[in-house]
Amino acid sequence: MIRVVKCGGQVLDDDALLEAFCRDFAALVGPKVLVHGGGALAGRFQKALGIEPVKYEGRRVTDEATLQVVTMVYAGWCNKRVVSLLQAAGCDAVGLAGCDGSAVTAAKRPPIALSDGRVVDFGQVGDVTPGSVRTEFLRMLLDNGYTPVLCAINHDGAGNLLNTNADTVAASVAAALGAGLTTCFEQPGVLMDRNDPASVIPYIDKESYASLKADGIVADGMIPKLDQAFDALEKGASEVRICHSSALLKGGGTLIR
Amino acid sequence: MIRVVKCGGQVLDDDALLEAFCRDFAALVGPKVLVHGGGALAGRFQKALGIEPVKYEGRRVTDEATLQVVTMVYAGWCNKRVVSLLQAAGCDAVGLAGCDGSAVTAAKRPPIALSDGRVVDFGQVGDVTPGSVRTEFLRMLLDNGYTPVLCAINHDGAGNLLNTNADTVAASVAAALGAGLTTCFEQPGVLMDRNDPASVIPYIDKESYASLKADGIVADGMIPKLDQAFDALEKGASEVRICHSSALLKGGGTLIR
Repeated sequence: MIRVVKCGGQVLDDDALLEAFCRDFAALVGPKVLVHGGGALAGRFQKALGIEPVKYEGRRVTDEATLQVVTMVYAGWCNKRVVSLLQAAGCDAVGLAGCDGSAVTAAKRPPIALSDGRVVDFGQVGDVTPGSVRTEFLRMLLDNGYTPVLCAINHDGAGNLLNTNADTVAASVAAALGAGLTTCFEQPGVLMDRNDPASVIPYIDKESYASLKADGIVADGMIPKLDQAFDALEKGASEVRICHSSALLKGGGTLIR
Repeated sequence: MIRVVKCGGQVLDDDALLEAFCRDFAALVGPKVLVHGGGALAGRFQKALGIEPVKYEGRRVTDEATLQVVTMVYAGWCNKRVVSLLQAAGCDAVGLAGCDGSAVTAAKRPPIALSDGRVVDFGQVGDVTPGSVRTEFLRMLLDNGYTPVLCAINHDGAGNLLNTNADTVAASVAAALGAGLTTCFEQPGVLMDRNDPASVIPYIDKESYASLKADGIVADGMIPKLDQAFDALEKGASEVRICHSSALLKGGGTLIR
């Protein structure tokens, strides 16, 4: 089974965590793909360059200057730093943005009209085009022993780069490849009690998810994560696991099926 | 025959030139590789971030902060912008830094002791390790119809990125692949009279090069370009052509053999 691993921003923001994560990922046996976010570095560079970061519902509004910064940070520094660490750890990594081999195509998100009459234009933000993951390209790399490392900068096929959500890229790639998806974040899994890291729920299916939501146990930021997990399963992913970034080799976390 | 094309910074600094160049490159028939420099953008970002660019004999001294900037600019913005334009023009481009698939490995340049006792430490600057171009990786891409697009950020195999000269990367890749090398720059070729663009020397071999140097016709910045051309030929490149970036399809320029 191919494994797609999504690693969150907190790993990229901490050199020691990143090096440990890359060693663990390199040690994973079998064909694998890494998808990474960007972390706080893009925001820091925006500020250093005098661009005020603007977000709407957690999503970075991406004007042309911001697109340049996120492309530089995600596809440039983060991607190549991760690839060089993986190579040093014996993993034959190949860093990619969605434009490379047209691996992932996205469409510019249309502006959203709010109920108060305002319009939110996300700018150069893209959503993954359904069916656009080019599995023949990714499989060529995997079949030859290479490990694709994807950032979330994609293209529209008409010469434009678009800033895309890394969780969606990971879910789309896992679904297209029929792969297992492991989403690494800063918690050991989905928790029964968010103040108790030992209260990991080992297994969630559609029925238990409905009651966990109804009881308010799964709330806030976990809802989009789990919605995306079930969406990936419906679209072809073989399983989804949510765990801490340090637990990649150990196993554990929450299995979604 | 595989063709390796090196495109200089002046193309990357001008949107209209870059788009025209990418259309021309996309239209080149046969297997091909593009190697690009970075242009003035890295220097502009350094200044915007409060880093004073330091050069020694034309070579950027690369401390850790500068390495981050050049990796962001060359491997991030420039590389992905070129790839997205090539994809839009029908060329199935795959953007790479040397760490990707360990395509090109470099070694950190040791500090140079000057005759006056000072020491120049180039920092994170690398020189391509002889024999390190991983032709099996590049050929896998070429054999499957993909076009590698390389920037000059390479790795040392131990987890470190290094800023490398793009002309050297292009010459090393052409030599390793036994490819023809086309170096595009802002002149129509090597000129008999540097003030007359019509005075292109159509053909230079080792003997004519020696007399052109002795007569002072080839001088300054052209000497390293031609030295590198002859070096590439000696190491396995099948031919070297030096021409204007707008002359990729037209032919012409100076042929070095």
